[in-house]
Amino acid sequence: MVMTFWVKIHYEDTDFSGAVYHANYFKFIERARSDRISKLGIDQLKLRKSNQIFVVRRISAKFIKPAYFGDSLFVETSFIRIGGASIELRQKIFKKEECIFLADVKLGMVTEGCVIRLPEQIKENLLKYESL
Amino acid sequence: MVMTFWVKIHYEDTDFSGAVYHANYFKFIERARSDRISKLGIDQLKLRKSNQIFVVRRISAKFIKPAYFGDSLFVETSFIRIGGASIELRQKIFKKEECIFLADVKLGMVTEGCVIRLPEQIKENLLKYESL
Amino acid sequence: MVMTFWVKIHYEDTDFSGAVYHANYFKFIERARSDRISKLGIDQLKLRKSNQIFVVRRISAKFIKPAYFGDSLFVETSFIRIGGASIELRQKIFKKEECIFLADVKLGMVTEGCVIRLPEQIKENLLKYESL
Amino acid sequence: MVMTFWVKIHYEDTDFSGAVYHANYFKFIERARSDRISKLGIDQLKLRKSNQIFVVRRISAKFIKPAYFGDSLFVETSFIRIGGASIELRQKIFKKEECIFLADVKLGMVTEGCVIRLPEQIKENLLKYESL
Repeated sequence: MVMTFWVKIHYEDTDFSGAVYHANYFKFIERARSDRISKLGIDQLKLRKSNQIFVVRRISAKFIKPAYFGDSLFVETSFIRIGGASIELRQKIFKKEECIFLADVKLGMVTEGCVIRLPEQIKENLLKYESL
Repeated sequence: MVMTFWVKIHYEDTDFSGAVYHANYFKFIERARSDRISKLGIDQLKLRKSNQIFVVRRISAKFIKPAYFGDSLFVETSFIRIGGASIELRQKIFKKEECIFLADVKLGMVTEGCVIRLPEQIKENLLKYESL
Repeated sequence: MVMTFWVKIHYEDTDFSGAVYHANYFKFIERARSDRISKLGIDQLKLRKSNQIFVVRRISAKFIKPAYFGDSLFVETSFIRIGGASIELRQKIFKKEECIFLADVKLGMVTEGCVIRLPEQIKENLLKYESL
Repeated sequence: MVMTFWVKIHYEDTDFSGAVYHANYFKFIERARSDRISKLGIDQLKLRKSNQIFVVRRISAKFIKPAYFGDSLFVETSFIRIGGASIELRQKIFKKEECIFLADVKLGMVTEGCVIRLPEQIKENLLKYESL
């Protein structure tokens, strides 16, 4: 199952080249991930208070086409693998029908800077989703 | 006494107008304030751990001239008033000899979202400076 | 007439204090202004191509309460005055019923770095709105 | 030959997890690339005016350790390959002696949204460097 998340391009997202500043695509896909995670019933604010934080461990990205001020983009997020200590996702950004950005993202979880296994409750929430 | 802080304009600071995105000037003066505060022996990371956080309460700013990619700007920060619960500063950004941005900033301090009086140690550090 | 614009607080908007980084409120109200301007039929991308750019000339802001990750805020934008060479707005950010940020903003227009009078077409679009 | 570029961590770079927001590392390495490119005598502002823009085509990154407010990091940038239409670099971010972030970056050049071959002058400037 793939869910989508909309991003509108504002002044702040662009740079003097005229197009979107490349690093901002990583913000867009993070918003989409957090939105997805929240919709699966995982409360990152509460996790933070118990010192459990999702962290990005790897990103591999391809920038295909530019986007501009005023564009409406959407992000597609798919879970690829949910392991013992990591989550792998593929995220694509589309402008109309066209994929303009693509990234493979590996997330982990840390407590006080140390990598931990995914708590059972979180894994359950994610797997419930996967089986949809 | 006025101390200066340098800011180099990078891609990320600009927008599609070609110049620096206006809200980023507020980042530049915050960097200069934090640098100043750190040099006065106040450790914001330690304060954070004891739940004491500097917050901006008011800003009044005038945008005079644009800045562009590659520009080297410098920020001048002057303390105007150190009160019981607030600090007032005037901050100016210069490009070469010319002032291109000006802001009056009022800071306060909060603990768990509530305004508090400035701790004595912090006031001492700030006033030591004022008398230089 | 007052129109509203929604802002969802993401990871990128916060800082290590735990709350929203103060300068980001200026981004939020800019998004709301641009959205409003676009809905009045003014195309900032086309203006840019003819070298006409809206610029912020003054901002006076009051930070009332903090906002946190996951919050849904809304921005209210009201035009106060549309002059020959400037536009004055009042913008408020609300969290639920409560106003947490307030700013008076003065915009101007420039061509190649020089202040110009507002083009008639733009003034018409803005005034049409005012009379609603 | 490897040159280094310093990055100081400011409030704006962090998020509510307490550490640096992951996407900001991509800003840090971009600053270091632009600094390097500028020192090789390539003027990105002038290129922009003649409609030639460097773009990121691929990034593959590994996030190893977190960084915090007040940290001084440095970026090491090495050219791996300078091709007909692309430049490949490896960039590492260090905190003291320790590598905390690593990225392989592939740049290209575009004119009006279309990929072009690297102009001879630019290639010369880059290769002069490589032979040092």
